[in-house]
Amino acid sequence: MSCPQAIADALSPLPSWQEGAIKTTIIDFVTDVTDPNNVNFVDPDDRIAVFDNDGTLWSEKPCYFQESFILHRQGSYANCFPEELGQETAPLTKEELIFTDTQLNYGITTDQYIQEANGFLNTANHPDFHRPYVELTFQPMVEFLQYLRDNGFQVYICSGGGIDFIRSFAEEAYGIPPQNVIGSAILSKFEIQEGNPVLVRVPLPVLPINNNAGKPVGLERYLGKRPIMAVGNSTGDLQMLQYTDDGQGQDLMMLVHHDDPNREYQYDEGAEDALQEAAQRGWSVISMKDDFIKVFAWE
Amino acid sequence: MSCPQAIADALSPLPSWQEGAIKTTIIDFVTDVTDPNNVNFVDPDDRIAVFDNDGTLWSEKPCYFQESFILHRQGSYANCFPEELGQETAPLTKEELIFTDTQLNYGITTDQYIQEANGFLNTANHPDFHRPYVELTFQPMVEFLQYLRDNGFQVYICSGGGIDFIRSFAEEAYGIPPQNVIGSAILSKFEIQEGNPVLVRVPLPVLPINNNAGKPVGLERYLGKRPIMAVGNSTGDLQMLQYTDDGQGQDLMMLVHHDDPNREYQYDEGAEDALQEAAQRGWSVISMKDDFIKVFAWE
Repeated sequence: MSCPQAIADALSPLPSWQEGAIKTTIIDFVTDVTDPNNVNFVDPDDRIAVFDNDGTLWSEKPCYFQESFILHRQGSYANCFPEELGQETAPLTKEELIFTDTQLNYGITTDQYIQEANGFLNTANHPDFHRPYVELTFQPMVEFLQYLRDNGFQVYICSGGGIDFIRSFAEEAYGIPPQNVIGSAILSKFEIQEGNPVLVRVPLPVLPINNNAGKPVGLERYLGKRPIMAVGNSTGDLQMLQYTDDGQGQDLMMLVHHDDPNREYQYDEGAEDALQEAAQRGWSVISMKDDFIKVFAWE
Repeated sequence: MSCPQAIADALSPLPSWQEGAIKTTIIDFVTDVTDPNNVNFVDPDDRIAVFDNDGTLWSEKPCYFQESFILHRQGSYANCFPEELGQETAPLTKEELIFTDTQLNYGITTDQYIQEANGFLNTANHPDFHRPYVELTFQPMVEFLQYLRDNGFQVYICSGGGIDFIRSFAEEAYGIPPQNVIGSAILSKFEIQEGNPVLVRVPLPVLPINNNAGKPVGLERYLGKRPIMAVGNSTGDLQMLQYTDDGQGQDLMMLVHHDDPNREYQYDEGAEDALQEAAQRGWSVISMKDDFIKVFAWE
């Protein structure tokens, strides 16, 4: 990065966000809760922001990327391509996805699973974008995460996706370390294999699946306190947003709206109830078309 | 605190620890992993220390303090006193304790449970020490936790005890916020009660119980990476120590040994296997009698 560019970025946070109401909402909120002289000041221990992953931090079409990984593990990655997927089978729901992964990827250590997933995400090409999946993170959201950390926030992922699947790439892609990832988990058991202490995946999910009403359960189990910011994109995030919007103190609830058919995808399916409640309760709706200067880093 | 005392403390970390091999081991380890020029330097994201709670950070006799709370909730707190407890019933094991608490304290919100537990720990008197339970934390260990945080460690509790029980007092007693507490959990369900989003306790434990081989499972589920330091006191901590002692990089494994019948208690029961493995593998054994200048803050 050139020096003038570095200075410009430092002066203007969130460079891939259009100036406008949404960017102002984010900056005003962060400014409020980090100013010790502001009545809305929040101590760093409580300055917790949670983000959904699929559809919020990266794409989720034509199917969840974890489904692509499952197809790869089954040796049928070709089925991932939309002309076949669209004609033959509907994409898996989050619950189907977790049960399928749980039944498929067991008996190996967590480290082995993570290595497999990381390798897949860095090498297999996405059927529409023809790029590795790790390149399909939303650049404005990556900046958002960094901006929050720069302001003393603890930033967590709270995803319906598999916790180990997300841990396999989240630190590299988002700067979010494994201990800040909450997701659907598989049971595991402790073993010492040839002197190495490891955890082996057992084909049973930890309940509940970390989606819909399971998200606040996961937040409480991992955090023991309510976030002050929650960002999602679908009805699977609705209860997480309701839980955050508890009427105590300053909160920010946001939905990423997929309304950009040219640069990404356009769809409301699976988000209808969340969008409706956002309108009723005044949650912020981020338009990918209007609020993102760029969607992907490589544009 | 007087100004000279404050300066003395700042110059000498761990003021309640006797000078000697154990204090030197702690300070040398922390100095090593925090010095960027040292080959053993560890990045702050990976600088994770985990502590057992019962018997490691506070006392666990004549029964686990969570058992005292259960007796209080059953209206039979008088049974907690050792002459009755010793003659009538053996103290509960960690597993019995968690199942009993799970069956007793359900149908209420997590917030209500935490409020009850916090009130109990701050007001009921311990049968031997005749002080509130929150005053039975080990002062040298509280200093140890703070010393680690001052050196950029992420400090977690990993306890077989109930996660909500520990969260009810850990921030006040140890400076450990709820999101850094790993423990045995109860299932919960999300509800909106009179407009308030809450979690209600369901009478089923989350498996496995976070003890023995369940501790590495909990560490992986919450952290997704191995700690570089683990401190316990009993065989319930053995697998946590084995998991930490993985032969990769610099690690520190420690056991608190209850060998001080005058200031606290003297016992090896429940710790025999851990003490034996500590001797074999060179883990550090902290003598409460010899290494602690004081055990409790109020001495």
